[in-house]
Amino acid sequence: MTPAHLALGAGGEFDRLRAIFRALGRGARDLGDDCALLRLGRTTLALSIDASLEGVHFRTEWLSFREIGWRGGAAALSDLAAEGARPLGVLVSLGLPRGRGTRGGGRVDPAAEIMRGVAAVTKSVGARVLGGDLTRSSRYLVDVCAIGTVDRPVRRSGARPGDGLWVTGRLGGAGLGLARLRAGRRVATAVRRRFARPQPRIAAGRWLARRGARAMIDLSDGLAGDAGHLAAASRVRVALELERIPCWPGVAPRAAARSGEEYELLVALPRRFGAREARAFRAVTGLALTRIGACSAGRGVRMTDRGRGMTAPPGFDHFPAR
Amino acid sequence: MTPAHLALGAGGEFDRLRAIFRALGRGARDLGDDCALLRLGRTTLALSIDASLEGVHFRTEWLSFREIGWRGGAAALSDLAAEGARPLGVLVSLGLPRGRGTRGGGRVDPAAEIMRGVAAVTKSVGARVLGGDLTRSSRYLVDVCAIGTVDRPVRRSGARPGDGLWVTGRLGGAGLGLARLRAGRRVATAVRRRFARPQPRIAAGRWLARRGARAMIDLSDGLAGDAGHLAAASRVRVALELERIPCWPGVAPRAAARSGEEYELLVALPRRFGAREARAFRAVTGLALTRIGACSAGRGVRMTDRGRGMTAPPGFDHFPAR
Repeated sequence: MTPAHLALGAGGEFDRLRAIFRALGRGARDLGDDCALLRLGRTTLALSIDASLEGVHFRTEWLSFREIGWRGGAAALSDLAAEGARPLGVLVSLGLPRGRGTRGGGRVDPAAEIMRGVAAVTKSVGARVLGGDLTRSSRYLVDVCAIGTVDRPVRRSGARPGDGLWVTGRLGGAGLGLARLRAGRRVATAVRRRFARPQPRIAAGRWLARRGARAMIDLSDGLAGDAGHLAAASRVRVALELERIPCWPGVAPRAAARSGEEYELLVALPRRFGAREARAFRAVTGLALTRIGACSAGRGVRMTDRGRGMTAPPGFDHFPAR
Repeated sequence: MTPAHLALGAGGEFDRLRAIFRALGRGARDLGDDCALLRLGRTTLALSIDASLEGVHFRTEWLSFREIGWRGGAAALSDLAAEGARPLGVLVSLGLPRGRGTRGGGRVDPAAEIMRGVAAVTKSVGARVLGGDLTRSSRYLVDVCAIGTVDRPVRRSGARPGDGLWVTGRLGGAGLGLARLRAGRRVATAVRRRFARPQPRIAAGRWLARRGARAMIDLSDGLAGDAGHLAAASRVRVALELERIPCWPGVAPRAAARSGEEYELLVALPRRFGAREARAFRAVTGLALTRIGACSAGRGVRMTDRGRGMTAPPGFDHFPAR
């Protein structure tokens, strides 16, 4: 669920993206972040597109069709959150296999259920479904384009040496849910909800943008991977302290740092931003905001565990290098 | 490549869309046309999303990857043309199979080639690629979301009894190209170009919107099918005269009326719009504008062949009723 970026980390997916940007040449100047930005009179539009495919991003054994729709919408809206944008609406492309749609004895219409899920997550952030397309497909496909407006866009590229690095909420719940489902084990209600119905951090992103966020990214590839994207785009070195990571109950910090599709926000804030500001954030959003590291001059991500250096866990990559 | 509409004709695809609209309830009020419209200050945004899938909309044996990208972009931009909108840009979701990409001895990067095609058609109408998403997929997937602005949106629903019904360009070339490719036969250069690189009728749509177009739709499902959508949305009866259809050389009127993915515009214009106005249109756009029928009180599409009634050829439907 990685959108196209200009400043990229390592990995097969990014090699492919680089080839695409070369192909587009000058036309691709603005393809550099979670969202595309489009100036329109006095308004700036923030736009993001995010495809979810059966067998790649979800399995119909693990999720209801409504949850599949919710997750697809949440992924696109989360990109708007990371820009500090206010969503207006979404467009949805649905791909539907012919003649599938019976579940548990009763008949449900997968298309209607998926759209109910997209509509629910969209409504939860004050936006609506604007339109869509429907096509036959060998496997289920949900592609969501989210549109919003933004007063002060927060890119990935604005972090500076000296900035603190903070994360919203707690990490590891989505990875825990996925691991349990993969193993065919029972999933606790709260864990399942975390995996199946992630909350796009729209209010959090807007608050952080207003309070001077320098760079922001949503955690879709895992903390280690996404910190690498932010470091590369901002041309800084990112130091992360493993023991500071706010973890989901029962999840170890290493697993939390590797967990993908958490949809929390990683944000670089000026050094003056401190505990008092974090309490104000919590009062407004109901979420923790935890300082887990800092930016310095240099390149790449360095992760330490109680002061000792460690190899950063790899992020999730749809196209591992062959 | 049919976008979601509210006022729908017959067929399995439309039954599914109706179920989706029921599921969305009141939130779906605006899901009624080629484009979604979004009021933003003094501007109105026009948005459309259109998915192209390998095996459903294209085959890699028939088209180069660049042509696949061009066609995917053209389909979404054509919806903006039918609204009378000016495109600003597109977002693209690409789905790529792992380990495919060798063609004709040399290695091409399918992702870069597809994006070159999308960028070329987007540039041809004065817009640009704004962003994208890349994912692994079992088959090639190109999903394009087009964004534009529109001063005077032309919906499908505005035709009135007495309006003339006109069509831009000539029909049947795309169907001819498809039939030749399906049969494994040689395709003449002009026919291949018509099929592989359709031109979104942006300038034509904007001219017609300024000159009082009452209703407009782009021809993606075939003339007969799309005339049915316009008739249903406008709650009028549409009479089409087969012998008036401007046909591609070597294509019979019946085949031209059935040919899908032509991306010409079908437009309802007030009765006063006549041959003089059509000449002015041609002078500006280089395209023919031909009166092929009229609207009257009633419902449905009636097609005549030199005055004799005939059964309208069916439109293309991705989900034929079982």
